[in-house]
Amino acid sequence: MARRDHEQVADYLDANPEAWEALAQATPSDAADIIEQLDEEDAVQLLSELPAAEAAEILEEIAPELAVELLEQFPLAELAAALNEMPGEAAADLIGELDDETTEDVLTAMTDEAESVVRDLLAYPPDTAGGLMTTEIAALPLGLTTGEAIERIRQLHEEYEDLSYVYVVDEEDRLHGVISFRDLVFKRPGAPLADVMILDPVAVTPLTDREEVAELAQRYHLFGIPVVDGQGRLMGMVTTEGVIEAVQDEATEDFAAAVGAGIAETVYTNVTSSFRMRVPWLGVNLVLALVVAFVIETQTGIIGQEPVLAALMPIVALLGGNGGNQSLAVMIRSLASDDVPSAQVPGILTRQTGVGALNGVVLGVLSGMVCFLLMRAEVFPSNSSPGRISVVVALSACVVLVVGSFAGSGIPVVLRRFGLDPALASSIFLTLITDTVGFGGFLLLAAWLL
Amino acid sequence: MARRDHEQVADYLDANPEAWEALAQATPSDAADIIEQLDEEDAVQLLSELPAAEAAEILEEIAPELAVELLEQFPLAELAAALNEMPGEAAADLIGELDDETTEDVLTAMTDEAESVVRDLLAYPPDTAGGLMTTEIAALPLGLTTGEAIERIRQLHEEYEDLSYVYVVDEEDRLHGVISFRDLVFKRPGAPLADVMILDPVAVTPLTDREEVAELAQRYHLFGIPVVDGQGRLMGMVTTEGVIEAVQDEATEDFAAAVGAGIAETVYTNVTSSFRMRVPWLGVNLVLALVVAFVIETQTGIIGQEPVLAALMPIVALLGGNGGNQSLAVMIRSLASDDVPSAQVPGILTRQTGVGALNGVVLGVLSGMVCFLLMRAEVFPSNSSPGRISVVVALSACVVLVVGSFAGSGIPVVLRRFGLDPALASSIFLTLITDTVGFGGFLLLAAWLL
Repeated sequence: MARRDHEQVADYLDANPEAWEALAQATPSDAADIIEQLDEEDAVQLLSELPAAEAAEILEEIAPELAVELLEQFPLAELAAALNEMPGEAAADLIGELDDETTEDVLTAMTDEAESVVRDLLAYPPDTAGGLMTTEIAALPLGLTTGEAIERIRQLHEEYEDLSYVYVVDEEDRLHGVISFRDLVFKRPGAPLADVMILDPVAVTPLTDREEVAELAQRYHLFGIPVVDGQGRLMGMVTTEGVIEAVQDEATEDFAAAVGAGIAETVYTNVTSSFRMRVPWLGVNLVLALVVAFVIETQTGIIGQEPVLAALMPIVALLGGNGGNQSLAVMIRSLASDDVPSAQVPGILTRQTGVGALNGVVLGVLSGMVCFLLMRAEVFPSNSSPGRISVVVALSACVVLVVGSFAGSGIPVVLRRFGLDPALASSIFLTLITDTVGFGGFLLLAAWLL
Repeated sequence: MARRDHEQVADYLDANPEAWEALAQATPSDAADIIEQLDEEDAVQLLSELPAAEAAEILEEIAPELAVELLEQFPLAELAAALNEMPGEAAADLIGELDDETTEDVLTAMTDEAESVVRDLLAYPPDTAGGLMTTEIAALPLGLTTGEAIERIRQLHEEYEDLSYVYVVDEEDRLHGVISFRDLVFKRPGAPLADVMILDPVAVTPLTDREEVAELAQRYHLFGIPVVDGQGRLMGMVTTEGVIEAVQDEATEDFAAAVGAGIAETVYTNVTSSFRMRVPWLGVNLVLALVVAFVIETQTGIIGQEPVLAALMPIVALLGGNGGNQSLAVMIRSLASDDVPSAQVPGILTRQTGVGALNGVVLGVLSGMVCFLLMRAEVFPSNSSPGRISVVVALSACVVLVVGSFAGSGIPVVLRRFGLDPALASSIFLTLITDTVGFGGFLLLAAWLL
């Protein structure tokens, strides 16, 4: 069902509460969409009427920040019952959104087993392998044959969230090898696991950053990564679903990082948290803006002579900022999807500067012509010759586009060289450069040519 | 191995060509990293000395635009041999980068089977399900039992790139059902496939957009999606690897889309293609910049009276642009990872405007104070009272941060409402708004208060 259908269904449900039963037949994702459209009271009533297992399945599909608002209105016993039914990491995600007091109450009300799984997971930040992992995995002793391994899994397989890989451990739970479930099935049944497994597989620790999880998965084409402790003991795995989540979250954080928003922010983050994450970068921006202001201040003489320059200068700065951000976005994107080899960097910078030069010539000529016509038509009345002012616009637009493209592609490389996130505040630094050239360079050129 | 190690290995290989053999022991991804660091001549020589199958594995791990530069220097027979060894969709990605003439020559030199697979795949754009799919999948007739199905797969399993799902088709290849390989293994061996498969699974057509593939996979937790033609005949599947690629590519395109870069652009795109993708949006930006210029032009009187305003106005515009882009980035990110329900939009806009207001008060007071001190210290000499000018800076900075946050979170919603990509040129439109308020509002307030 498309989003629009869900809205209609929600309207219908509002008017016909007896139809709620039908919802049980939708997939959890579709049911979640419908519930998100209901008002909070109806949503809570509907969820609390469902069996705990079904409610849990639906709650897993709702953004944790929203789901928790509904959950807070459940009686404690019902809340604990729903959380008992969820995979540990989904329950931990939700519980992580509750306040500390409710968290303790809820954990105590859950079954001992579920409580212990969730407590273990809550120990790790959500953007680490520990925060992403599941502990319900197939881990088998070294001594088995493949046939015995499959029999063992047959009995337990419904407990495993992800069976893409089977891990082989010794008596002390230390990870020795991995075999894909598919290979396990097609090996000769009598073969010892120790002979057919891949030795010393790629593994991470619970505190490994989500970014590294995403990179390892893509680099080595892994759809699941084992998580081991400092002694090499198997603790869990990041499932295929966890890998996709890590790839998605890492890939979408770059734009936020580039403009100094919180990389953990979502649209449901509360106002004060968002404010705290963003305000430091706005402060940095203020300092950088003062540099731009200072550069312009040294040139106010020419603006006094030719006030139309004050109106025209943002054109140059805007074009440079836009062109620079285009190069920045392409560069950051390529660094995120693919590890750009440093041997390629000079060629990349040359190409981006080339694109800036082509754009610069076209937009320079265009902006010069348009400004000339508007000055001739006295839409923008000028004291000096419109022709000369147009040349200033054209030349500085061209220069700022070249500089912007070079800086936009260069800044992420410099940040990476210093071991920083290539996206970090990159758009803010870029704007300093394009505005300094766009305003300051424009006015300097004007002072020289007019 | 980390990137730095690869660079050292590459340097070492440059100096010690006899060590190249050791490369054969690295994983294809690690070998690819090393080759990317070599100069082109060495890289070509090294690859052409490897057996075709090994060269193919390594070439698959290099960005297609780079790999193709190496491939173009291979003799035709060797090039065809390497491509024969690759999975069809990897070969198609590479061949898609060759010029038309070479493409024809290479296809003719490949084996008939590989040629036909690649030709079929080349028919679909790379950002569609057809461009992502593999045709080497497990498709079994309806009449089999689960035991027979496993026997059938056992004989062919090495040909399947992805065995997460087994598809069940009728005599005319029409897709009837799907069963996960894991479930297939643990069902009673005598059970007819028709009884244990999931009927009418989620499927896409070869022209379904990559974005929808990514959304379906995440919404329904699918790690593989069947691709069917208009008559429902099974053509292939988007594998887990294809799903991860789709999620990654969709997630990283938003920043590029927001600033009007080409969403298919990478750092290896040639200069004229990049230019053609970016220049239309720079043109739009020029038109919008003229609006900003026009707004300022109406207020040049006040700048003439108080030239320091020309220096201070970019501060206000920069803060508004940055704050607005923070809200924009968070909004676009949330829309990309999670379908934000429309019932939540008013709350989201309210929160973002609230964040803008908090930032506005803090940055307004801060920028007002800093400007006051700089004017008092005559770093920015002013004609009128520094106090009054500071109030103008503070008030307009506050207003532009509120407006920017509201617009930044609202623009993607409006674009989505019109059925457009929520990111499309959103940063360009946002800058029009923040610059109009930042420059125009600032000057209007100055004219009123000074």
